[in-house]
Amino acid sequence: MIAVGIVGGTGYTGVELLRLLATHPEAEIRTITSRKEAGLAVEAMFPSLRRISRLAGLSYSNPAQADLQGCDVVFFATPHGVAMAQARELIGAGVKIIDLAADFRLKNASEFERWYKMPHACPDLLAESVYGLPEMHRETIRGARIVGNPGCYPTAIQLGFLPLVEAGIVDIDHLIADAKSGVSGAGRKAEIDLTLSEASDNFKAYAVTGHRHHPEIVQGLNGISKRPVKLIFTPHLTPMIRGIHATLYARLTRTDVDLQQLYEERFAGEPFIDVMPKGSHPDTRSVRASNVCRIAVHRPQDGDTAVILAVVDNLVKGAAGQAVQNMNLMCGLPEETGLLAPPVLP
Amino acid sequence: MIAVGIVGGTGYTGVELLRLLATHPEAEIRTITSRKEAGLAVEAMFPSLRRISRLAGLSYSNPAQADLQGCDVVFFATPHGVAMAQARELIGAGVKIIDLAADFRLKNASEFERWYKMPHACPDLLAESVYGLPEMHRETIRGARIVGNPGCYPTAIQLGFLPLVEAGIVDIDHLIADAKSGVSGAGRKAEIDLTLSEASDNFKAYAVTGHRHHPEIVQGLNGISKRPVKLIFTPHLTPMIRGIHATLYARLTRTDVDLQQLYEERFAGEPFIDVMPKGSHPDTRSVRASNVCRIAVHRPQDGDTAVILAVVDNLVKGAAGQAVQNMNLMCGLPEETGLLAPPVLP
Amino acid sequence: MIAVGIVGGTGYTGVELLRLLATHPEAEIRTITSRKEAGLAVEAMFPSLRRISRLAGLSYSNPAQADLQGCDVVFFATPHGVAMAQARELIGAGVKIIDLAADFRLKNASEFERWYKMPHACPDLLAESVYGLPEMHRETIRGARIVGNPGCYPTAIQLGFLPLVEAGIVDIDHLIADAKSGVSGAGRKAEIDLTLSEASDNFKAYAVTGHRHHPEIVQGLNGISKRPVKLIFTPHLTPMIRGIHATLYARLTRTDVDLQQLYEERFAGEPFIDVMPKGSHPDTRSVRASNVCRIAVHRPQDGDTAVILAVVDNLVKGAAGQAVQNMNLMCGLPEETGLLAPPVLP
Amino acid sequence: MIAVGIVGGTGYTGVELLRLLATHPEAEIRTITSRKEAGLAVEAMFPSLRRISRLAGLSYSNPAQADLQGCDVVFFATPHGVAMAQARELIGAGVKIIDLAADFRLKNASEFERWYKMPHACPDLLAESVYGLPEMHRETIRGARIVGNPGCYPTAIQLGFLPLVEAGIVDIDHLIADAKSGVSGAGRKAEIDLTLSEASDNFKAYAVTGHRHHPEIVQGLNGISKRPVKLIFTPHLTPMIRGIHATLYARLTRTDVDLQQLYEERFAGEPFIDVMPKGSHPDTRSVRASNVCRIAVHRPQDGDTAVILAVVDNLVKGAAGQAVQNMNLMCGLPEETGLLAPPVLP
Repeated sequence: MIAVGIVGGTGYTGVELLRLLATHPEAEIRTITSRKEAGLAVEAMFPSLRRISRLAGLSYSNPAQADLQGCDVVFFATPHGVAMAQARELIGAGVKIIDLAADFRLKNASEFERWYKMPHACPDLLAESVYGLPEMHRETIRGARIVGNPGCYPTAIQLGFLPLVEAGIVDIDHLIADAKSGVSGAGRKAEIDLTLSEASDNFKAYAVTGHRHHPEIVQGLNGISKRPVKLIFTPHLTPMIRGIHATLYARLTRTDVDLQQLYEERFAGEPFIDVMPKGSHPDTRSVRASNVCRIAVHRPQDGDTAVILAVVDNLVKGAAGQAVQNMNLMCGLPEETGLLAPPVLP
Repeated sequence: MIAVGIVGGTGYTGVELLRLLATHPEAEIRTITSRKEAGLAVEAMFPSLRRISRLAGLSYSNPAQADLQGCDVVFFATPHGVAMAQARELIGAGVKIIDLAADFRLKNASEFERWYKMPHACPDLLAESVYGLPEMHRETIRGARIVGNPGCYPTAIQLGFLPLVEAGIVDIDHLIADAKSGVSGAGRKAEIDLTLSEASDNFKAYAVTGHRHHPEIVQGLNGISKRPVKLIFTPHLTPMIRGIHATLYARLTRTDVDLQQLYEERFAGEPFIDVMPKGSHPDTRSVRASNVCRIAVHRPQDGDTAVILAVVDNLVKGAAGQAVQNMNLMCGLPEETGLLAPPVLP
Repeated sequence: MIAVGIVGGTGYTGVELLRLLATHPEAEIRTITSRKEAGLAVEAMFPSLRRISRLAGLSYSNPAQADLQGCDVVFFATPHGVAMAQARELIGAGVKIIDLAADFRLKNASEFERWYKMPHACPDLLAESVYGLPEMHRETIRGARIVGNPGCYPTAIQLGFLPLVEAGIVDIDHLIADAKSGVSGAGRKAEIDLTLSEASDNFKAYAVTGHRHHPEIVQGLNGISKRPVKLIFTPHLTPMIRGIHATLYARLTRTDVDLQQLYEERFAGEPFIDVMPKGSHPDTRSVRASNVCRIAVHRPQDGDTAVILAVVDNLVKGAAGQAVQNMNLMCGLPEETGLLAPPVLP
Repeated sequence: MIAVGIVGGTGYTGVELLRLLATHPEAEIRTITSRKEAGLAVEAMFPSLRRISRLAGLSYSNPAQADLQGCDVVFFATPHGVAMAQARELIGAGVKIIDLAADFRLKNASEFERWYKMPHACPDLLAESVYGLPEMHRETIRGARIVGNPGCYPTAIQLGFLPLVEAGIVDIDHLIADAKSGVSGAGRKAEIDLTLSEASDNFKAYAVTGHRHHPEIVQGLNGISKRPVKLIFTPHLTPMIRGIHATLYARLTRTDVDLQQLYEERFAGEPFIDVMPKGSHPDTRSVRASNVCRIAVHRPQDGDTAVILAVVDNLVKGAAGQAVQNMNLMCGLPEETGLLAPPVLP
């Protein structure tokens, strides 16, 4: 059994890690921390977790006293800045780290500083860390000590663009990602904009002038294109709890490629990527509570624009599920372990 | 492995059975039927079930040709009237039957006829069938050949009233059940009243003058009271997908009983009943996608009225989950088998 | 034209007052205050109010500098405690006051103190103030200098019980009000429980052990019954923006009264009370954005329990609309002035 | 007073016309028809319209017997194909026609036939009819006998692209409209996909390969560009009742134009177009129940792509409100008459 620690278990990625790990056959939660809720039983915080035998007796511990060093893997489900502050000590103790925040996503430390308004605490560890998108970096993840788990938008958008950019058949100076997220993507936060009174029966774009996930997506796509990509990224807030729907537009520089075949071949064998039949429109609920990313490929009017639809559950493939997938890889387990429960529908 | 057949697998209880059985370690789906969708792959009907290995290759078969007699257990996830038409033949072939519709819920055939507007096809089998609420009839369910799986409202309401009525400490002439259901309780139906445009941002009571679940609840409570109960039952349609919240009112004839203790003792050891701490307000999402019924007990102003709050997921404990629980009992498996995944929150 | 001032115009009752008064033919908004947003244009706070000619140029002013004394009527759309602190000065200057908070609702100052955790600042003014439910106190409202505008739950529940209690035909020791509110009832607040991620696809009771609106409802019903009533009041949070649905239960002490006729006669001529045809189930959206209260009367199984359904828009008849109705009465205008726009459906 | 007739008053555009006309100072509803509901009182169909004095006594009449010829203006809130069948007779009787369906939107009759699968009944009347987007065709609308009221998506998308295409500063071979609609845009229909169980907590694209509004948008933009435009149009279904949010992308061929200024100047004086301040993100609820279209202009990273955000209420500016605006123009009334009530928020 893998001994698991979770730092910061009171947010949505934390409770989702608990949900997934509670049925994982090879992992055992040893400790979970929360500065604010230290001493509180996990099930008092989240009554949905009452009477789950594998979580029985689990309480939040004070981060200062938690035995994180006795764990095999530690997940950071914390605000940006926490993981990098503790990484060196844990790595030194032989603990593998998976950070669900942004500390180990952007390879360029000054880029990190620009978007997250704090200096990076350990550029050397950042250099060795691996970006945890298994469909792009599976082999290096297997050997990694530190994984920066991708953001939710970046997961859907990179997976959606990946085959086109890899194949070099689109105008990479003008990629467009029009993405729609459920409200849980903003985290478990008390903000007026996120209340049901404000966010339901409503739809809006936000951060059109610049969103923190922009550099992360660009970095990933740059890694597979021959030269830097340019991307317009428009995030929107959608009145639903979970789910991301990315609608991607790319101008084709070659129109003689069978896009459906391209996607099917690129993702053949991928356990969590579902290239849907031609003409499909995946809906976000078809992946609710599951680690699958479903993708559909369109070329309207057989023109020169590819329209790619990609959906994920922002809390699973876009966060906690992908983190468990990374843990499986880092620990030598079959990648799908503990991640095969069907989506919840309706 | 238990060989399972599902008759009528295109509604919400059908797809929920598929979801639950896809991870059940001791059951295997042999056949699933649909008159209308015969030949269609299950995953074409419900893309959420794509790439679930245990459902791979499963297609709807024509009811006339399906090998239901080769199954150990057959679930009827059909409209009222279907199960009773096929019950005799299946029972004769040694197949156990669990009906998720109402054919085997009401013991009185003329009561059935009155509410469901059709004569009962097999009153003798009705007589031997068992009402599938394990918390009331566990032992007889174990030996049953036919189980009538309870309705969603009746599950929450009977469980909520059970300890009070059993203890004989309330005025059973004036029980009140004010119940609120998510829209999926109406089934997978094309009706204007159920559209998002009509049902969201809205709340209403319906069927105040009489609902089919009324006789079912009364029958269950009569079974544990010394004389017939009288019940006011007010169902309401709530703008959510899943969930039932029953708010129950009963006049106490004795006020010297510790209600919290009464409930805790009555449900001690029950794997799926969670009596919450005093003062709790269970929310429906705390049981979303799980087989748990959470109950909280209140006595406002220490007066003579007990207020009981009970929540279930109408598609799980209120339908498919309870059906699997019954299957486990009928087949000699541990009752919790395949039903322990935590609720999905948020 | 009536010169109107609004104190505290950044919450939901404030913006609703602005919406209603912007089309009121006899009122003119002179000043609107906000300590926090002083200097900000109203339309910058609420873009929905951009390009409304009668609000053009309106900005929040600092409460300390606002010319409230030059107004004919001042609405307080503030937290509890603000109106009573400013009432004496305004009354002295000849200004009429309508408080949408609770300062002038509970006639008993110690009851106020108990529930709102602050001493009452002006018990003498409290004594002269009038409870602003026109269907009960129309004539005294006309002559009032200070009106305590009713809470949202109390409006629906008192109107629903009114004919039964007035007629003296129910057991007033055991009234039950099972009420469901949209999330805007909690105000424009940043609280985790109110976020879409927490409150949508969910339903729960709250404050079962005691809610501030309980004494207000009881006070109102006591005023029309021969002796004090006892009430069980169970509020629930519903995943919708606006709307209250009260389901009321009362044991009939006389069953020979035609309840439908009783209600129709009691509310005949009431401009904002709609007694629906027998057998109706009013839905909350049928009053969305309007000042109407719709009521339906049921007696299930012709038994001894009356079930009354009453719906209001919590921000209109439950707050700002009723406040405007009171203003009309206090200023000698036809009661319906400015309040006749049809509900918004769907 | 303008005598108004409504053909087909049981859908969402019909009930919205009733809501708007009930407060219109210069219009009077003479007759409303419904084949299916003939004889039924309007308020029995839509309880939200009970007790609206100007609708009192209004019942649906049989289309065959309705005195439409006695009206000044007749609105068709019917399925496609109805208006063109009755247009000649009404026009002959001097009645003005506003069709809210598609019969008079597409100028090319064979294009109409291709998308709506029926031959056009009166190509000559089609030729004289005017496309009812006042911001583009105000003067011809004033003199029109027949107006084809624009679709909801086309309204938002054409208004959003208008200044860019008129100014000739974008690559019109590669326009992209990523549009999101509330569920009421599909009409008042009993379809499984539209139920709350299916459509809420969900998001999906649809008709990516071709939507009926595509030719309508293209026709409008062609009218202002020097040569035919090419458009990618991706509609999405959003879990909300009302609202369209169009996110528009256009490659700038000139980047020296101040886009904010361009939009402000183009729409200066337009009563229902609100060009928001730079950097804004209009949300759909800011126009809920109102006839306003709000637009924000962005140029991310000061690059060569303009991102335009446009929101309308699909039932108001996208249907019934715009129809009333057209009626006002056709009848010589001030364009804003009856359309100035503020949006409903929250």
